[in-house]
Amino acid sequence: MSNQTLTVVAKIEAKTNHLEALRKGLIRLIIPTLAENGCINYDLHQDHNNENSFLFYENWESRSHWEDHNVSFHIKAFQQATEGMIEKVEIFEMHKID
Amino acid sequence: MSNQTLTVVAKIEAKTNHLEALRKGLIRLIIPTLAENGCINYDLHQDHNNENSFLFYENWESRSHWEDHNVSFHIKAFQQATEGMIEKVEIFEMHKID
Repeated sequence: MSNQTLTVVAKIEAKTNHLEALRKGLIRLIIPTLAENGCINYDLHQDHNNENSFLFYENWESRSHWEDHNVSFHIKAFQQATEGMIEKVEIFEMHKID
Repeated sequence: MSNQTLTVVAKIEAKTNHLEALRKGLIRLIIPTLAENGCINYDLHQDHNNENSFLFYENWESRSHWEDHNVSFHIKAFQQATEGMIEKVEIFEMHKID
Protein backbone atom coordinates (compact mmCIF):
# COMPACT_ATOMS: atom_id res chain seq x y z
CA MET A 1 0.00 0.00 0.00
CA SER A 2 2.99 2.32 0.50
CA ASN A 3 3.35 3.32 -3.15
CA GLN A 4 -0.25 4.15 -3.75
CA THR A 5 -1.69 7.63 -3.58
CA LEU A 6 -2.35 8.67 0.01
CA THR A 7 -5.29 10.88 0.95
CA VAL A 8 -4.88 12.79 4.19
CA VAL A 9 -7.73 14.57 5.96
CA ALA A 10 -6.40 16.82 8.72
CA LYS A 11 -8.88 18.56 11.03
CA ILE A 12 -7.37 21.42 13.00
CA GLU A 13 -9.35 23.27 15.64
CA ALA A 14 -8.21 26.69 16.79
CA LYS A 15 -8.44 27.94 20.33
CA THR A 16 -11.05 30.69 20.03
CA ASN A 17 -8.69 33.53 20.90
CA HIS A 18 -6.26 32.46 18.20
CA LEU A 19 -8.60 31.91 15.29
CA GLU A 20 -7.26 34.62 12.97
CA ALA A 21 -3.60 33.96 13.68
CA LEU A 22 -4.03 30.23 13.13
CA ARG A 23 -5.99 30.86 9.93
CA LYS A 24 -3.12 32.96 8.58
CA GLY A 25 -0.59 30.30 9.57
CA LEU A 26 -2.58 27.60 7.77
CA ILE A 27 -2.92 29.73 4.62
CA ARG A 28 0.82 30.33 4.69
CA LEU A 29 1.39 26.55 4.36
CA ILE A 30 -0.40 26.25 1.03
CA ILE A 31 2.10 27.64 -1.47
CA PRO A 32 5.25 25.88 -0.17
CA THR A 33 3.35 22.62 0.27
CA LEU A 34 2.01 22.67 -3.29
CA ALA A 35 5.61 23.10 -4.44
CA GLU A 36 6.72 19.91 -2.64
CA ASN A 37 7.56 16.69 -4.46
CA GLY A 38 4.61 14.36 -4.62
CA CYS A 39 1.93 16.84 -3.52
CA ILE A 40 -1.13 16.41 -5.74
CA ASN A 41 -3.42 18.83 -3.92
CA TYR A 42 -3.60 20.56 -0.55
CA ASP A 43 -6.98 22.21 -0.09
CA LEU A 44 -7.79 24.18 3.05
CA HIS A 45 -11.38 24.64 4.27
CA GLN A 46 -13.20 26.31 7.13
CA ASP A 47 -16.35 24.87 8.72
CA HIS A 48 -19.60 26.83 8.25
CA ASN A 49 -20.95 25.77 11.62
CA ASN A 50 -17.75 26.11 13.63
CA GLU A 51 -15.43 28.86 12.45
CA ASN A 52 -12.68 27.49 14.71
CA SER A 53 -12.54 24.29 12.68
CA PHE A 54 -10.29 23.96 9.63
CA LEU A 55 -9.70 20.99 7.39
CA PHE A 56 -7.00 20.14 4.87
CA TYR A 57 -7.94 17.70 2.14
CA GLU A 58 -4.63 16.45 0.73
CA ASN A 59 -3.49 13.89 -1.82
CA TRP A 60 0.10 12.67 -2.04
CA GLU A 61 1.78 10.44 -4.62
CA SER A 62 2.90 8.16 -1.78
CA ARG A 63 3.02 8.03 2.00
CA SER A 64 6.75 8.79 1.96
CA HIS A 65 6.12 12.11 0.18
CA TRP A 66 3.72 13.02 2.98
CA GLU A 67 6.29 11.94 5.59
CA ASP A 68 8.78 14.37 4.01
CA HIS A 69 6.13 17.11 4.18
CA ASN A 70 5.67 16.50 7.90
CA VAL A 71 9.29 17.38 8.60
CA SER A 72 9.55 20.18 6.02
CA PHE A 73 10.88 23.61 6.92
CA HIS A 74 7.46 25.26 6.51
CA ILE A 75 5.69 22.70 8.72
CA LYS A 76 8.31 23.18 11.42
CA ALA A 77 7.99 26.97 11.13
CA PHE A 78 4.19 26.65 11.34
CA GLN A 79 4.41 24.48 14.46
CA GLN A 80 6.70 26.99 16.12
CA ALA A 81 4.60 30.03 15.10
CA THR A 82 1.28 28.51 16.22
CA GLU A 83 2.37 26.93 19.49
CA GLY A 84 -0.49 27.23 22.00
CA MET A 85 -3.05 28.25 19.37
CA ILE A 86 -4.42 24.80 18.56
CA GLU A 87 -7.18 23.09 20.52
CA LYS A 88 -7.15 19.76 18.71
CA VAL A 89 -5.75 18.01 15.64
CA GLU A 90 -7.15 14.86 14.07
CA ILE A 91 -5.43 13.22 11.11
CA PHE A 92 -6.95 10.50 8.95
CA GLU A 93 -4.92 8.53 6.41
CA MET A 94 -7.08 7.16 3.65
CA HIS A 95 -7.13 5.83 0.13
CA LYS A 96 -9.59 6.71 -2.56
CA ILE A 97 -12.08 4.05 -3.65
CA ASP A 98 -12.62 4.26 -7.41
CA MET B 1 -22.82 32.40 1.23
CA SER B 2 -25.58 30.30 -0.37
CA ASN B 3 -24.36 30.71 -3.94
CA GLN B 4 -20.76 29.87 -3.29
CA THR B 5 -19.26 26.45 -3.80
CA LEU B 6 -20.02 24.17 -0.88
CA THR B 7 -17.55 21.55 0.31
CA VAL B 8 -19.06 18.65 2.21
CA VAL B 9 -17.05 16.15 4.22
CA ALA B 10 -19.20 13.18 5.23
CA LYS B 11 -17.74 10.54 7.56
CA ILE B 12 -19.69 7.29 7.61
CA GLU B 13 -18.79 4.48 9.97
CA ALA B 14 -20.05 0.97 9.29
CA LYS B 15 -21.15 -1.48 11.92
CA THR B 16 -18.44 -4.13 11.73
CA ASN B 17 -20.72 -6.91 10.51
CA HIS B 18 -21.95 -4.77 7.63
CA LEU B 19 -18.67 -3.38 6.31
CA GLU B 20 -18.75 -4.99 2.87
CA ALA B 21 -22.42 -4.34 2.22
CA LEU B 22 -22.10 -0.71 3.25
CA ARG B 23 -18.97 -0.31 1.11
CA LYS B 24 -20.89 -1.57 -1.92
CA GLY B 25 -23.79 0.75 -1.16
CA LEU B 26 -21.47 3.75 -0.92
CA ILE B 27 -19.73 2.87 -4.19
CA ARG B 28 -23.13 2.56 -5.86
CA LEU B 29 -23.80 6.24 -5.04
CA ILE B 30 -20.86 7.58 -7.01
CA ILE B 31 -22.03 7.34 -10.65
CA PRO B 32 -25.54 8.76 -10.17
CA THR B 33 -24.25 11.51 -7.88
CA LEU B 34 -21.58 12.61 -10.37
CA ALA B 35 -24.38 12.90 -12.95
CA GLU B 36 -26.34 15.32 -10.73
CA ASN B 37 -26.64 19.02 -11.48
CA GLY B 38 -24.05 21.03 -9.59
CA CYS B 39 -21.86 18.13 -8.47
CA ILE B 40 -18.20 19.09 -8.96
CA ASN B 41 -16.67 16.01 -7.35
CA TYR B 42 -17.73 13.18 -5.05
CA ASP B 43 -14.71 11.22 -3.89
CA LEU B 44 -15.09 8.22 -1.60
CA HIS B 45 -12.27 7.07 0.71
CA GLN B 46 -11.62 4.36 3.27
CA ASP B 47 -9.50 4.90 6.38
CA HIS B 48 -6.19 2.99 6.60
CA ASN B 49 -6.41 2.69 10.35
CA ASN B 50 -10.11 1.91 10.66
CA GLU B 51 -11.54 -0.06 7.76
CA ASN B 52 -15.06 0.62 9.05
CA SER B 53 -14.61 4.33 8.41
CA PHE B 54 -15.46 5.90 5.03
CA LEU B 55 -15.33 9.52 3.96
CA PHE B 56 -16.86 11.39 1.05
CA TYR B 57 -15.10 14.56 -0.02
CA GLU B 58 -17.63 16.48 -2.10
CA ASN B 59 -17.83 19.85 -3.80
CA TRP B 60 -21.11 21.35 -5.00
CA GLU B 61 -21.79 24.47 -7.07
CA SER B 62 -24.13 25.68 -4.32
CA ARG B 63 -25.78 24.47 -1.14
CA SER B 64 -29.09 24.07 -2.94
CA HIS B 65 -27.54 21.55 -5.36
CA TRP B 66 -26.41 19.53 -2.35
CA GLU B 67 -29.90 19.79 -0.80
CA ASP B 68 -31.33 18.29 -3.99
CA HIS B 69 -28.79 15.48 -3.76
CA ASN B 70 -29.90 14.69 -0.21
CA VAL B 71 -33.41 13.89 -1.40
CA SER B 72 -32.41 12.21 -4.66
CA PHE B 73 -33.71 8.80 -5.65
CA HIS B 74 -30.29 7.16 -5.21
CA ILE B 75 -29.77 8.62 -1.72
CA LYS B 76 -33.20 7.40 -0.65
CA ALA B 77 -32.50 3.95 -2.13
CA PHE B 78 -29.15 3.90 -0.30
CA GLN B 79 -30.78 4.83 3.01
CA GLN B 80 -33.33 2.06 2.60
CA ALA B 81 -30.77 -0.55 1.51
CA THR B 82 -28.31 0.21 4.32
CA GLU B 83 -30.74 0.60 7.21
CA GLY B 84 -29.14 -0.78 10.37
CA MET B 85 -25.64 -1.00 8.81
CA ILE B 86 -24.35 2.40 9.92
CA GLU B 87 -22.75 3.08 13.29
CA LYS B 88 -22.31 6.84 12.91
CA VAL B 89 -22.50 9.66 10.38
CA GLU B 90 -20.81 13.05 10.73
CA ILE B 91 -21.33 15.76 8.13
CA PHE B 92 -19.28 18.94 7.87
CA GLU B 93 -20.27 21.83 5.61
CA MET B 94 -17.29 23.93 4.63
CA HIS B 95 -15.92 26.40 2.15
CA LYS B 96 -12.53 26.35 0.57
CA ILE B 97 -10.03 29.02 1.58
CA ASP B 98 -8.00 30.10 -1.45
